[in-house]
Amino acid sequence: MPVYTCTTARSALDAPTKAALATELASIHSRINHVPSTYVNVVFHSLPEEDLYTDGRPAAPLIVNGWTRTGHPEAQTDQLVREIADAATRVTGIPAERVLVIIGNSPARFAVEGGRVLPDPGQEEAWLRGDTG
Amino acid sequence: MPVYTCTTARSALDAPTKAALATELASIHSRINHVPSTYVNVVFHSLPEEDLYTDGRPAAPLIVNGWTRTGHPEAQTDQLVREIADAATRVTGIPAERVLVIIGNSPARFAVEGGRVLPDPGQEEAWLRGDTG
Amino acid sequence: MPVYTCTTARSALDAPTKAALATELASIHSRINHVPSTYVNVVFHSLPEEDLYTDGRPAAPLIVNGWTRTGHPEAQTDQLVREIADAATRVTGIPAERVLVIIGNSPARFAVEGGRVLPDPGQEEAWLRGDTG
Repeated sequence: MPVYTCTTARSALDAPTKAALATELASIHSRINHVPSTYVNVVFHSLPEEDLYTDGRPAAPLIVNGWTRTGHPEAQTDQLVREIADAATRVTGIPAERVLVIIGNSPARFAVEGGRVLPDPGQEEAWLRGDTG
Repeated sequence: MPVYTCTTARSALDAPTKAALATELASIHSRINHVPSTYVNVVFHSLPEEDLYTDGRPAAPLIVNGWTRTGHPEAQTDQLVREIADAATRVTGIPAERVLVIIGNSPARFAVEGGRVLPDPGQEEAWLRGDTG
Repeated sequence: MPVYTCTTARSALDAPTKAALATELASIHSRINHVPSTYVNVVFHSLPEEDLYTDGRPAAPLIVNGWTRTGHPEAQTDQLVREIADAATRVTGIPAERVLVIIGNSPARFAVEGGRVLPDPGQEEAWLRGDTG
């Protein structure tokens, strides 16, 4: 259900590091937001140097844009964003100063996966039962 | 006014399929949200295999992120997201299990096109008249 | 704190123009939203022709997606979106008719930079003091 989009310089992350970060993000999201990790998508935009700027100068940030369904308890999202940011630095070695994590959201009813409208937070179990039934 | 961003593996869609999906998304959005199809933008991110993961493993989802103006009737957005998801599978042949559609929104006043702030939902006709006047 | 993502045809902008646009966006955002320009990130997605469509046909729009923290005064965001759109045309030479600017937002507490949760609008000074203290 969620998607994390990681934007970095092409040279910043090799394939094994991307896979490791994707695994860690799936694990964190699954544990905190009660979604099977099989539903956690991670996308990398690995950009040429001339396509990334901070303060108008070429830079090498790691920007992680997450998307979740509206309505998770605030404390849960607070924990999620902190753990995602910690993991981003820990897994990639990119210093925290260059890591920016942003979590956005939309109502679950404005998202469809597997042909079905997503469940509101707290309704995952019934939805998943339907998914396998 | 809207933008649909489709993220897939580079190998998943050829150019004619992308064009066909762009045409279908423009048609659906125009019909449901009362915007001329000439205002519907579709962007593809066609990524290398090492840049897409589900559950920490290389994967080939089709993720469609739409953006619309805040304030469309909920039933309208419900229909929009369902038709977009159906079209994504129908046009590309990618099974529904790997298709995720997410519609986000912002207030119309926080968007500018053609040098003019976008109209709120329901005010499109007056805006478009201004556009050609 | 903010991120601006500019999506265009690969052939539309050369590197110096990207750098100039990044500098201008950082300057505008810094002045209007009271954030040091050193915190303004600009990302370019420079796409092949077959990945951009308007009305189902290959096209060359410039789409600028901005993200800011929720809670800036509305008049401030109105000014921001207009100045960003004006700058996009002025710096790139792409006519306003093909420029679309969209500003989204999330609560500051759902974003982390430099290992710290972002401050709400109006709390930047205290946050920045903490940053250097």
